[in-house]
Amino acid sequence: MSEEKKLVIGFPKGSLEKPTYDLFAKAGYKISVSSRSYYPTIDDKELKGILIRSQEMSKYVENGNMDCGLCGKDWIVENNSDVVDVCELMYSKQTANPVKWVLCVHEDSPFNCPEDLEGKTIATEAVGMTTRFFEEKGINVKVEFSWGATEVKCPSLVDAIVELTETGSSLRANRLKIIDTLTISTTRFIANKEAWENEWKREKIDHLAMLLQGALSARSKVGLKMNVLEKNIDKIVAILPCLKEPTVSHLRNSDWLAIEVIVDEKIVREIIPKLKKIGAEGIIEYALNKVIL
Amino acid sequence: MSEEKKLVIGFPKGSLEKPTYDLFAKAGYKISVSSRSYYPTIDDKELKGILIRSQEMSKYVENGNMDCGLCGKDWIVENNSDVVDVCELMYSKQTANPVKWVLCVHEDSPFNCPEDLEGKTIATEAVGMTTRFFEEKGINVKVEFSWGATEVKCPSLVDAIVELTETGSSLRANRLKIIDTLTISTTRFIANKEAWENEWKREKIDHLAMLLQGALSARSKVGLKMNVLEKNIDKIVAILPCLKEPTVSHLRNSDWLAIEVIVDEKIVREIIPKLKKIGAEGIIEYALNKVIL
Amino acid sequence: MSEEKKLVIGFPKGSLEKPTYDLFAKAGYKISVSSRSYYPTIDDKELKGILIRSQEMSKYVENGNMDCGLCGKDWIVENNSDVVDVCELMYSKQTANPVKWVLCVHEDSPFNCPEDLEGKTIATEAVGMTTRFFEEKGINVKVEFSWGATEVKCPSLVDAIVELTETGSSLRANRLKIIDTLTISTTRFIANKEAWENEWKREKIDHLAMLLQGALSARSKVGLKMNVLEKNIDKIVAILPCLKEPTVSHLRNSDWLAIEVIVDEKIVREIIPKLKKIGAEGIIEYALNKVIL
Amino acid sequence: MSEEKKLVIGFPKGSLEKPTYDLFAKAGYKISVSSRSYYPTIDDKELKGILIRSQEMSKYVENGNMDCGLCGKDWIVENNSDVVDVCELMYSKQTANPVKWVLCVHEDSPFNCPEDLEGKTIATEAVGMTTRFFEEKGINVKVEFSWGATEVKCPSLVDAIVELTETGSSLRANRLKIIDTLTISTTRFIANKEAWENEWKREKIDHLAMLLQGALSARSKVGLKMNVLEKNIDKIVAILPCLKEPTVSHLRNSDWLAIEVIVDEKIVREIIPKLKKIGAEGIIEYALNKVIL
Amino acid sequence: MSEEKKLVIGFPKGSLEKPTYDLFAKAGYKISVSSRSYYPTIDDKELKGILIRSQEMSKYVENGNMDCGLCGKDWIVENNSDVVDVCELMYSKQTANPVKWVLCVHEDSPFNCPEDLEGKTIATEAVGMTTRFFEEKGINVKVEFSWGATEVKCPSLVDAIVELTETGSSLRANRLKIIDTLTISTTRFIANKEAWENEWKREKIDHLAMLLQGALSARSKVGLKMNVLEKNIDKIVAILPCLKEPTVSHLRNSDWLAIEVIVDEKIVREIIPKLKKIGAEGIIEYALNKVIL
Amino acid sequence: MSEEKKLVIGFPKGSLEKPTYDLFAKAGYKISVSSRSYYPTIDDKELKGILIRSQEMSKYVENGNMDCGLCGKDWIVENNSDVVDVCELMYSKQTANPVKWVLCVHEDSPFNCPEDLEGKTIATEAVGMTTRFFEEKGINVKVEFSWGATEVKCPSLVDAIVELTETGSSLRANRLKIIDTLTISTTRFIANKEAWENEWKREKIDHLAMLLQGALSARSKVGLKMNVLEKNIDKIVAILPCLKEPTVSHLRNSDWLAIEVIVDEKIVREIIPKLKKIGAEGIIEYALNKVIL
Repeated sequence: MSEEKKLVIGFPKGSLEKPTYDLFAKAGYKISVSSRSYYPTIDDKELKGILIRSQEMSKYVENGNMDCGLCGKDWIVENNSDVVDVCELMYSKQTANPVKWVLCVHEDSPFNCPEDLEGKTIATEAVGMTTRFFEEKGINVKVEFSWGATEVKCPSLVDAIVELTETGSSLRANRLKIIDTLTISTTRFIANKEAWENEWKREKIDHLAMLLQGALSARSKVGLKMNVLEKNIDKIVAILPCLKEPTVSHLRNSDWLAIEVIVDEKIVREIIPKLKKIGAEGIIEYALNKVIL
Repeated sequence: MSEEKKLVIGFPKGSLEKPTYDLFAKAGYKISVSSRSYYPTIDDKELKGILIRSQEMSKYVENGNMDCGLCGKDWIVENNSDVVDVCELMYSKQTANPVKWVLCVHEDSPFNCPEDLEGKTIATEAVGMTTRFFEEKGINVKVEFSWGATEVKCPSLVDAIVELTETGSSLRANRLKIIDTLTISTTRFIANKEAWENEWKREKIDHLAMLLQGALSARSKVGLKMNVLEKNIDKIVAILPCLKEPTVSHLRNSDWLAIEVIVDEKIVREIIPKLKKIGAEGIIEYALNKVIL
Repeated sequence: MSEEKKLVIGFPKGSLEKPTYDLFAKAGYKISVSSRSYYPTIDDKELKGILIRSQEMSKYVENGNMDCGLCGKDWIVENNSDVVDVCELMYSKQTANPVKWVLCVHEDSPFNCPEDLEGKTIATEAVGMTTRFFEEKGINVKVEFSWGATEVKCPSLVDAIVELTETGSSLRANRLKIIDTLTISTTRFIANKEAWENEWKREKIDHLAMLLQGALSARSKVGLKMNVLEKNIDKIVAILPCLKEPTVSHLRNSDWLAIEVIVDEKIVREIIPKLKKIGAEGIIEYALNKVIL
Repeated sequence: MSEEKKLVIGFPKGSLEKPTYDLFAKAGYKISVSSRSYYPTIDDKELKGILIRSQEMSKYVENGNMDCGLCGKDWIVENNSDVVDVCELMYSKQTANPVKWVLCVHEDSPFNCPEDLEGKTIATEAVGMTTRFFEEKGINVKVEFSWGATEVKCPSLVDAIVELTETGSSLRANRLKIIDTLTISTTRFIANKEAWENEWKREKIDHLAMLLQGALSARSKVGLKMNVLEKNIDKIVAILPCLKEPTVSHLRNSDWLAIEVIVDEKIVREIIPKLKKIGAEGIIEYALNKVIL
Repeated sequence: MSEEKKLVIGFPKGSLEKPTYDLFAKAGYKISVSSRSYYPTIDDKELKGILIRSQEMSKYVENGNMDCGLCGKDWIVENNSDVVDVCELMYSKQTANPVKWVLCVHEDSPFNCPEDLEGKTIATEAVGMTTRFFEEKGINVKVEFSWGATEVKCPSLVDAIVELTETGSSLRANRLKIIDTLTISTTRFIANKEAWENEWKREKIDHLAMLLQGALSARSKVGLKMNVLEKNIDKIVAILPCLKEPTVSHLRNSDWLAIEVIVDEKIVREIIPKLKKIGAEGIIEYALNKVIL
Repeated sequence: MSEEKKLVIGFPKGSLEKPTYDLFAKAGYKISVSSRSYYPTIDDKELKGILIRSQEMSKYVENGNMDCGLCGKDWIVENNSDVVDVCELMYSKQTANPVKWVLCVHEDSPFNCPEDLEGKTIATEAVGMTTRFFEEKGINVKVEFSWGATEVKCPSLVDAIVELTETGSSLRANRLKIIDTLTISTTRFIANKEAWENEWKREKIDHLAMLLQGALSARSKVGLKMNVLEKNIDKIVAILPCLKEPTVSHLRNSDWLAIEVIVDEKIVREIIPKLKKIGAEGIIEYALNKVIL
């Protein structure tokens, strides 16, 4: 592998930046960036990072300025970008819920569906997505670009808005009601089409995707170990909801077995009392960095 | 198990609140509470949480407003509450020491024992406990409720105080001396007597207790692994102070054994040099989330 | 072992203080220090700690005021101290790079090598090291002690400076260029020569060194586990760059083997894709507290 | 005046403590208190300060432990204390509104007046005030002491509460409605009756009251100066809403007058345009430290 | 004046928001806004506030959504808005310098004037202003809207940028050089043309402008008082650079005069030594809240 | 006055830096410094600032690198610098007390006076001052330079120390006792001797000194105004402890006088009650920026 081989990767500037670096760290890549710089340092000579606003990511990946990058599905749609959707990565700022772009009007307005907005004015940061949405329905509206604080403009300045929401709290605070949903969005790892055809780049991207998904997967899983009498093994295994067979090994000079298994963290509280009841001993739980099944 | 089954659990409002949520998280329960609310959200539909001051917890558990709750032993004594003491949970705010309620007088006062206080005035937040303490000894005193800052009132406003202490530093700073101890207190998981007779509730409480104790236990323990020659196994095992037998497995095609054991973290620094000296190799230590022996 | 046996150990006051305590905690020693005190409390009665500026550490270890201590190699050189260099401990404030003492002049100055400074004035915090550096080269210069903010003095107050640098950013901000390097420095665990001859002290120092190195080593290492078909074991082992043989155990009633190995964290991202390709399954990675191979 | 003369003054511990010190500083008294102490240092040898919870202040002033003190009118009522009410001082934590103790029930409850609560249970921190309120109305209720978080107990634990409110936001957040008001309260400067009969102490208390009121008064007032032609003086004075006559002085060798007046800050924005219109020139506004009219 | 009369005023959301509220407070208007709301509360029933991004202010004032508002001159130019420019208000975020929109290229680029950019691509947040700038010069360029972090795009993504600068530090950090200036901008108080024709609204706007300018003016001015012998009065007055005649009053029974004058704070340091030299005594300087000359 | 005239002034880097800028701001000079720079910007073209550690200030003023500067008297003594002591400026970090350099030994040591230290070792940051102190007394000691944390070295590393103290708390915390005082120090405004001979520079320095002292003086003084009946004027004036005669002016058409006076802030609380008692009305107090009597 020659030193000149480089994969250029775009990181999303803004609220996703820090969670992205944390996820890469778990996957095995140390990324740092000095406060004024836009070129993160990565401890892999084959990777060259650049910080780009999520809104512009898919455009620059499509153009080939970067080979690949991470950004929301919503902005790929908004930019109508022709890129490879390598994989979905479900990590986000506040909650595990995907974000949505919704069409909203004021609670007190007479509008209840997109059709009611014929001839009206709509403010949004996502002009492309919104324009196409109404064109496809054959509804005439005036779509206006908004610099932000969009939710406060309705109804005093415009008749409706198309806005991003994660928990809905900001919409409620401004007394807006949702009358349709345009896009549900999660973070995507995307690639430039030409880069995807290059064998070396495609393999590099695939490996990154595998490690990132392995790190994400480990967040919700734990390792469990316990000792059981050989005669109880089948009852124990029946309780353990593991995807693969558990690792079972004989202990020295005894009729006890050591069992080790990877399970969802959230079911541990259910199964530990059951395991204990049918004779499991020395049960321990430990945390994981990566899980690749 | 029907959806309607609910266990109502009281969490202690105040300095123990955050450590309690952390302990439940380790046990497998995610709890969150919005800033103004007194009803924490728990990711288990069978649990319903309510925040109550530690001082009032045992009263409301006794009355059946809650099925169970966590609070200090001291306030169970103060309220003279008739509840089930499910288990002790040794987690606390600052240190691992239990807190104590002590009878204090000023360093320069002539008082040296409770009997010296005949006819005197005593300020305390724990009027019930203090009144009964002196009644049992047949000493006449005037017990006065104090709204706080009790230690500063002695001797200018009252002759003695009964006050909570963890490290004693606040008492020393106010030049007070301890002349007796009324109660030593740790956090308890308590239950209502009627709830305890209900089979479903009792099992739910038992499982919670098992998982909370498993999480607490893991804080002071670690896992140790190492490889040893089969001929050295007895010398090694003699050094390892584990409660149960270690997990020992044969390695493939060799006369080496893999040993795995759970030990108190604080003795590791003593035994590692010894293990190394008698031939243990590849010694590693790792952290634990839960330990249920 | 008698209670009177004590090893006096010096901790470096300043930016290394907190990282040093963190490292000792990982090694199994809890250290705390109240804000005004210079005598840290250690949970080992055989150890007595003292806080000393890194600049002065080697002098006092040489003199026997302390039995051992931690400080930078640079100040051992500056002080010309005759001490035992027990081991190197590669932990540092900002980065993993060793710090350097460099000879700098202003970007616009005509000086390009030490020889150009004949007859000139040089400001530095490290007068000893600088004086010897120029003496060995036979260059006459005037070396002036600087109280700090050294980089701002050049060229208005002095012709050159000798200054500590880790990332070079402060030098660049002051438009200075490096024309030579005097010392590259890392943190060292040093001991007094007489203490080193005392059997009890030497063993205590050796055990500390073993545990500190075990804790440091664990920072860059992880545990990997996976299951493989017995027939693939040799291909798998060929990929795993472990120092020792992997722990391999037979699974019950099957032709699968469980493999466990300790590897450098930084190579995991390389080998996981390879392991996966040749048939490893259920690969998991977990973190370590200590590694003593 | 002998050095032995001392006035003992109680300062309210808690949220009023810092605003109280700020007000005293404006009045000319520097007060400081170290973090653990309950005895503030005052730069006046005739004053001796002590920190006491607002709830207990009037009790100890009545008993003569302190000569005077600052606390809320509500706790004087609660404790039924027989003290001298020297003056009202309208400074408070959040707003300029006085705080109120109100009787509240849940929004969905059938209760609409105190009489509806016959035979019910009421939780409150102010047991004395609440008991007397219902006794005077001849209504039988059970009054229960609450340790805090009182508003969350209604209706699940009690039928009604008596609670402190400043803005009402915490009541609304818990969906409570107010059905009666027990006390409206502001901060008072109170004195012990015996101390009030002592000539030296009474004068000292009077002077303190004068300076504190002067400092409070200056917060809402400003000084205004302007020049006017002598012939316009009556029109100008008619606009100026000052309590006393304005200070008017002739300017040298001219038919202009200089006017200076103290007015409420909040009316300045109204009168400046009017003053300007009828010929005032050189209008300036400046801030005040004390105003004693 | 009827209660229904309302003047709608737009406040700039963002970095100017807090300084704007501070200026209004000095002028006599208390404004508060809860964290999620866009409708500030003002203690004047005739005013209704709304928060709007500075970029959009002039558009909405022009359209009549608001009667008046505060925003930068730059965005009035960018939006080409037809509004009344009531007055300039020189308050700003960091410094007293007006902000500038400048055309920048990379230090190492061959471009030295706008003409060198024929056929090139320019990124900017101010597309209107930039397009008109090049059209007027007859230079063909491609102007591209930028979402931010504009300075980092040059030269890797675009050939030049048009960007806002106050101190130039961000430009220098990105190694950009300024080759032309498009607009110099200060904050303006603007009004809708129709509102300006309404007598009541115009007077309200005029009074606001008077008070805001009075408060701004006081920031750079102070009051000076001194006593002088009558015979020296002409020499003293010659030194005092006041806009109006000083206020001079005779002192009682003496040949001394008291002089009071409002001057620029920045010249005080020059004139005090001169005043002292020619016999002024008891010179004092005091601060001002408002100055309306 | 030509543009080339420059006075170079040194500001003390460190804990005095911010208080120094605040004092200059009060005196009329705005000083700002960006975080990495050592050249403060001053809004007076005739002044050029430079940041220098207090320890080195007098050396560089003596050498003529700066014309003048601010530093502690202690470091002038330590450096034995031959400079002009223009004036004392009593502003300091924590308290108004001057700092002292004291000779300290451990509480438990047998040393009680400097003579007891014959042949002993003394650690200090002020080697020059300490060496001369003992030489003058004819006592032989070994004086050792200390890098800081000097107070912790005694008695384990040295026999005595010479150290700076303001409140003595750090000495007490280390159980040291003071056995002699070497220097009492306050901040001084110093000048280079040659600069002092230059007429323009000397006048500039004098004017700076006048304004700085005027600003310092205003911190402890306030303005008082009141109205009194002409017949009471002598009684009132007798109470007012002003340095100069009060400014007294007749009010228009009345027998009232307006009195204005500058007094120490700390006596206001004493005299206001007296003034009120003998008929003063409309008493107001206001703050001052500068006082030059």
